[in-house]
Amino acid sequence: MTSTSPSGTAAALAACRAASPLVQCITNFVSMDIMANTLLAAGASPAMAHSIAEVEAFVSIASALLINVGTLSDGWVGGMKLGAQRAVELSKPWVLDPVGCGATPYRSLICAEMLQLKPTVVRGNASEIMALAGAAGATTRGVDSTAAATEALAAAKQLAAQHGCVVAVSGAEDLVTDGRRVLRVANGVPMLQQITASGCSVTALIAAFVSQFPQQPLEATAHALSYFGLAAELAVSAGGVKGPGSLRVGLLDQLATMSEAEVLAGARVLE
Amino acid sequence: MTSTSPSGTAAALAACRAASPLVQCITNFVSMDIMANTLLAAGASPAMAHSIAEVEAFVSIASALLINVGTLSDGWVGGMKLGAQRAVELSKPWVLDPVGCGATPYRSLICAEMLQLKPTVVRGNASEIMALAGAAGATTRGVDSTAAATEALAAAKQLAAQHGCVVAVSGAEDLVTDGRRVLRVANGVPMLQQITASGCSVTALIAAFVSQFPQQPLEATAHALSYFGLAAELAVSAGGVKGPGSLRVGLLDQLATMSEAEVLAGARVLE
Amino acid sequence: MTSTSPSGTAAALAACRAASPLVQCITNFVSMDIMANTLLAAGASPAMAHSIAEVEAFVSIASALLINVGTLSDGWVGGMKLGAQRAVELSKPWVLDPVGCGATPYRSLICAEMLQLKPTVVRGNASEIMALAGAAGATTRGVDSTAAATEALAAAKQLAAQHGCVVAVSGAEDLVTDGRRVLRVANGVPMLQQITASGCSVTALIAAFVSQFPQQPLEATAHALSYFGLAAELAVSAGGVKGPGSLRVGLLDQLATMSEAEVLAGARVLE
Repeated sequence: MTSTSPSGTAAALAACRAASPLVQCITNFVSMDIMANTLLAAGASPAMAHSIAEVEAFVSIASALLINVGTLSDGWVGGMKLGAQRAVELSKPWVLDPVGCGATPYRSLICAEMLQLKPTVVRGNASEIMALAGAAGATTRGVDSTAAATEALAAAKQLAAQHGCVVAVSGAEDLVTDGRRVLRVANGVPMLQQITASGCSVTALIAAFVSQFPQQPLEATAHALSYFGLAAELAVSAGGVKGPGSLRVGLLDQLATMSEAEVLAGARVLE
Repeated sequence: MTSTSPSGTAAALAACRAASPLVQCITNFVSMDIMANTLLAAGASPAMAHSIAEVEAFVSIASALLINVGTLSDGWVGGMKLGAQRAVELSKPWVLDPVGCGATPYRSLICAEMLQLKPTVVRGNASEIMALAGAAGATTRGVDSTAAATEALAAAKQLAAQHGCVVAVSGAEDLVTDGRRVLRVANGVPMLQQITASGCSVTALIAAFVSQFPQQPLEATAHALSYFGLAAELAVSAGGVKGPGSLRVGLLDQLATMSEAEVLAGARVLE
Repeated sequence: MTSTSPSGTAAALAACRAASPLVQCITNFVSMDIMANTLLAAGASPAMAHSIAEVEAFVSIASALLINVGTLSDGWVGGMKLGAQRAVELSKPWVLDPVGCGATPYRSLICAEMLQLKPTVVRGNASEIMALAGAAGATTRGVDSTAAATEALAAAKQLAAQHGCVVAVSGAEDLVTDGRRVLRVANGVPMLQQITASGCSVTALIAAFVSQFPQQPLEATAHALSYFGLAAELAVSAGGVKGPGSLRVGLLDQLATMSEAEVLAGARVLE
């Protein structure tokens, strides 16, 4: 069992490194390189496989499935749906990243359809979570990238409660809820927002961590967010970060080399 | 209004950072990561969205559209054309990067068709611009990667005059023309050619800059080229660049952190 | 003629840098950025072009073709097959990377079909090569990522002999065989496995090197593996590698700047 203390984060990371879970990723083109490298750095094994011809067979050998709608097109939606359905049938966790939900009607529609396929976890920024709640018929309205955290939290709790999933809202402080409890994650640095697909990558990490603690998706999600944010902090602390280019390099280095002591000293999951 | 002096480059960069324009990119798979990171480093907001199902809706919320034909296939051409048409309808700038024009008949055909959709700016290397001029029926002939700059300039001026666009030719010294005036940009380092998609990325920057100065696409294009090339120069000056791997890192760092004083001291747009 | 000595590796690299062969890559989305940068660093010229509309025309101007099935889907298989057939017709080398062969029936089927199109070289890890041999009807069975090198070697020799190609098995020590001779390559560092698509990238290098020595694909393949592995070693030796993020940067730097003296001192192709 994983607690919300730093020792819980350390245990979650240790479990991921020991098990090397195969995380199948159906994700956008922008994110593929950094997402695969993030998973490798955490000790997991990435597999980018999206084709309708093999997506179900792949889910059957994977430990978890990540679905990210970033560079969405009809040719990929079929594979996304088949994959999600198969994951649910096999009781394997799948995690949804509703990139850009709310930006276009098509995107909101597909995200709402994916939400019906019972994701284990949904992670997005405040705007995306609020848009997803709206697209799914919740009373929360408005899509604003400067959405107040409190408003996004209400949407997140509503989504989580209605759909029986964990919802994570990324921000200066990340919020994670199962509709009742709310965990806050106070790791990370603002410059992460200047690295494309850093949010996508942490969602893949969530899939990896949740696969090791399927009964505790709330805690496992928070630990993945904490570990990723802490890696960015440690990269900055180590010196050598001059901007987003070198932060990306340092981030991957720290994800791969982070020690238990560093996790214990730096992880900040708060209840 | 933006002049061709270093203060003009500084003003263009400041405008991009202040406005954070949403730049929609329909681009090749190779370029997506570095292009998105380049736009983020410049303070712009990238959105890679290509599907025919949402491309028009996305254009309506974007500040500019970038179309790059690098990993061209029929499945993407429809979205490219719809996007370009919608941008013109909405009077939003769109920028064409005719990657590999001249390499195959298919590629030349699609590039010529895109050219008919009235891009605001076209940027390519000498071979691509000469091939595009040939494919579009100009008298310039021949596709040679060692094409003389003067021959490419003639093709660029002809293209620009016939199609009412700005044409930029990348090279040791970049040339930018609207068919009458010719600006030269003397920034950059030769090693940039060893970073894949660096040319693609600067075309996306052009889209971002032009969105802020829609009445001055000639100057805005030159400023984007100058800013990008100067970032590479500053990365080398800062030390730590040992090859194309570290240059890519330093380039993104410098794009993100470049100060007004550095722009004023280093930008070289010449008329 | 290229020997298996370090001077042979140096000669192969020098030939690649001098000729700058155009290497057409039909490859997975994850690998595109690092593969193109790897080829550029080696002095080659990458071209990612996969569409059925131009793949044959592209092969006709390329020096070699790389086909990697990583993010496989039906929409790409047609282009892969047409490209391979055209390469054979034009007597140009083409190299197959059977990523994930054995993971799903679909993937094994497509890999077996590609094998019938007479690749010049096949490169994979032990599991992939053993799965490919099984899918192609060889007596070798079993797909295990911890497959013993000796068992993979037997599969590799069988594949090579039956299909008239060179087969390379990546591992702590790489094995390269034409069915009779076996070369071993003792360069590289374990951390390379934490860089996504590093294996994909070295396969593209093989295509580049083999294009320069079409009569000696066995030796050229070994030299490409040696050069790539040595670049990783030199990156570590140079200091500054703290994890897979910085190793990737250093790898590209060393590929681009490696001197003849460094090759002569470090290349380890053994017969």
